Amino acid sequence: MEVINTQVAIIGSGPSGLLLGQLLAKQGISNVIIERSSAVHVLSRIRAGILEQGFVDLIREAGCNARMDAEGHTHDGFQISVNGKGTRIDLKALTNGKVVTCYGQTEITRDLMDARQAACLPTYYNAPVSEITDANSAAPSVYFEQDGRQYEVNCDFIAGCDGFHGISRPTIPNHIRKEYERVYPFGWLGLLSDTPPVDDELIYCKHPRGFALASQRSATRSRYYLQVPLTDKVEEWSDERFWDELKKRLPEDASQRLQTGPSIEKSIAPLRSFVCEPMQYGRLFLVGDAAHIVPPTGAKGLNLAASDVATLYQVLTRVYKHDDMGCIEQYSEICLRRVWHGERFSWWMTNMLHDFGELNVDNTDGAIFNKLMGSELDYFLNTPAGKVTIAEQYVGLPYESLKD
Amino acid sequence: MEVINTQVAIIGSGPSGLLLGQLLAKQGISNVIIERSSAVHVLSRIRAGILEQGFVDLIREAGCNARMDAEGHTHDGFQISVNGKGTRIDLKALTNGKVVTCYGQTEITRDLMDARQAACLPTYYNAPVSEITDANSAAPSVYFEQDGRQYEVNCDFIAGCDGFHGISRPTIPNHIRKEYERVYPFGWLGLLSDTPPVDDELIYCKHPRGFALASQRSATRSRYYLQVPLTDKVEEWSDERFWDELKKRLPEDASQRLQTGPSIEKSIAPLRSFVCEPMQYGRLFLVGDAAHIVPPTGAKGLNLAASDVATLYQVLTRVYKHDDMGCIEQYSEICLRRVWHGERFSWWMTNMLHDFGELNVDNTDGAIFNKLMGSELDYFLNTPAGKVTIAEQYVGLPYESLKD
Repeated sequence: MEVINTQVAIIGSGPSGLLLGQLLAKQGISNVIIERSSAVHVLSRIRAGILEQGFVDLIREAGCNARMDAEGHTHDGFQISVNGKGTRIDLKALTNGKVVTCYGQTEITRDLMDARQAACLPTYYNAPVSEITDANSAAPSVYFEQDGRQYEVNCDFIAGCDGFHGISRPTIPNHIRKEYERVYPFGWLGLLSDTPPVDDELIYCKHPRGFALASQRSATRSRYYLQVPLTDKVEEWSDERFWDELKKRLPEDASQRLQTGPSIEKSIAPLRSFVCEPMQYGRLFLVGDAAHIVPPTGAKGLNLAASDVATLYQVLTRVYKHDDMGCIEQYSEICLRRVWHGERFSWWMTNMLHDFGELNVDNTDGAIFNKLMGSELDYFLNTPAGKVTIAEQYVGLPYESLKD
Repeated sequence: MEVINTQVAIIGSGPSGLLLGQLLAKQGISNVIIERSSAVHVLSRIRAGILEQGFVDLIREAGCNARMDAEGHTHDGFQISVNGKGTRIDLKALTNGKVVTCYGQTEITRDLMDARQAACLPTYYNAPVSEITDANSAAPSVYFEQDGRQYEVNCDFIAGCDGFHGISRPTIPNHIRKEYERVYPFGWLGLLSDTPPVDDELIYCKHPRGFALASQRSATRSRYYLQVPLTDKVEEWSDERFWDELKKRLPEDASQRLQTGPSIEKSIAPLRSFVCEPMQYGRLFLVGDAAHIVPPTGAKGLNLAASDVATLYQVLTRVYKHDDMGCIEQYSEICLRRVWHGERFSWWMTNMLHDFGELNVDNTDGAIFNKLMGSELDYFLNTPAGKVTIAEQYVGLPYESLKD
């Protein structure tokens, strides 16, 4: 058994773990990242690409912003299309100048990995964690295996950045942990292609045939989604069928502009709302997907992970710089307030934009639910105050600071 | 069989039917009201008392405003209390001067009945309608019985103001009519007492023990409500138990001010969202509860009936003054747009303020739903735009005019 000593053990090398590691290193706080998969596998995950300003600022704080600044695109707004008629949400005008940045999660991960490697910070790939011990003591440990060798990490704190299926969350005992969940009765079929995006901005489409989203990763790479029944298989969706269906759900002008091409990736993902409370147990902190999942409508998943990182960064900096252990108790409360707002916004956007058909929702059949959601969208898109609520939630509510 | 000839047969002498009759008479359009119950029974119904400005204006147009002007109270705002902490929604400030008027439905009904009697307009009480014929023709008829005598009303149009259980709605054939419904998993226990209201304005209370509402009919008459399980019986709720429970759910300052007294009326009502589409079939128009029901949270029921009346008044005036039959086709569409907005607001207020316990809602258990609604309320009560959306919906969205 090899023993590693560090101040913070970070489980998971997704963007949350990498960003946290980079920030802590900047403050001289030692950290080790342990990742169950390979770096290549981590980089193969296709995820969101809409960053709130708070996230962008954090990447800057970490000093990993060069490529994001050069290649990322500022989005001043986005469109919501209802049965082919688009309404623009002018984020900048509705929020006194706030915007979002379009830059793929894969790119962020790559930039952070490069920075970590350049700084020679210890990272273990292909290293599944088998156990976390003494999380609720002053001397927690993390055990993992790599290339047949056993490792023990002795640390002050553990950051559980290991996603929904990771070991961190179940380490919190059942009688302390409460989980909240909703699974949606449909999925998203996503297609990635090296074609120019149909629009400079994102288009969220509500349509009787089902929801669609036109998004993008860069000026030459597009990401499109279609609402599909959970029973559909990806094999049933040829590229041709996908493009045909997408054209029907887009606004007419966008549909005419659409450039199609072969898919690079195509997959069906379920939609889930999930929160675990609390997010801290002794010296173990849950970060991002380990504690909460949102449906992708509204692009909040990565951004909520970022605000967890921002809070944990504040907490650990204060612990080490000001010897204030008491502040760790604030982590869960501060994170969860913002998490629940993000959960609610994602749930609302999902409810409002998808077609529930005759499915039972909200204690009744989908028919009245669809009608109510149609009226909801009509109200929020056609009143000044309604549009402000959409815009200010989309750009992200403010980060909260630790109390003194 | 006695035959009555009139231009408009109005079924039901609730506030909608009476108001419509008064307005039509003002334009010289003859009308007959047919009511299945007695006038005394109609006046015994305890209902809402918060009137939107559009309704107040319509009562003025009908010339029945004297007592409302003298005895009604203008409410510039209301409170939403969350776990005992109140936030005021300043309607006047948030909507550029719009307010609501507090004046009981029973009083409006009485004023309208008095005016109808003074004008000697024909009204048949204790007169159940047995049949509506030829609604989809140019010569519809209404058949009713009174004191053992049979009547046939030959008319140009029929206004179905006969409520949820009336004969008008089922007169629209099944294959044309689509009904949307949600029944809520709890009820409201209401208590009326001759005690001064606990506050000048309404207080909507969200509380872990369940929702409560402190409302009023006058400076000396209070109306309070408690959320209760649907399985509760009114006999299980002594006045004392009611007051004790109410005190626990009110904000602390209100709880201390609360003056209790014997109940005049106490009953449990279920909560329902219901809409029938379309609201017009040939020469038959559905008005108010005949076509739509809202849960009482948000006080929209009577106000939606009033906007139906306003629209039907416009339609029939144009038909008779400008010989434009084509405009009757606009009735349903214009009414339903506003109805769905009111349905949504009432549904939203109900969802947000009630406790769903572990009940299944929205395709999942009540636990996550309660959490999401808690966050919803936090967002809407603590952001300027959020408060505007509550206020502008509470005072009522604008009435829509007929297209030329």
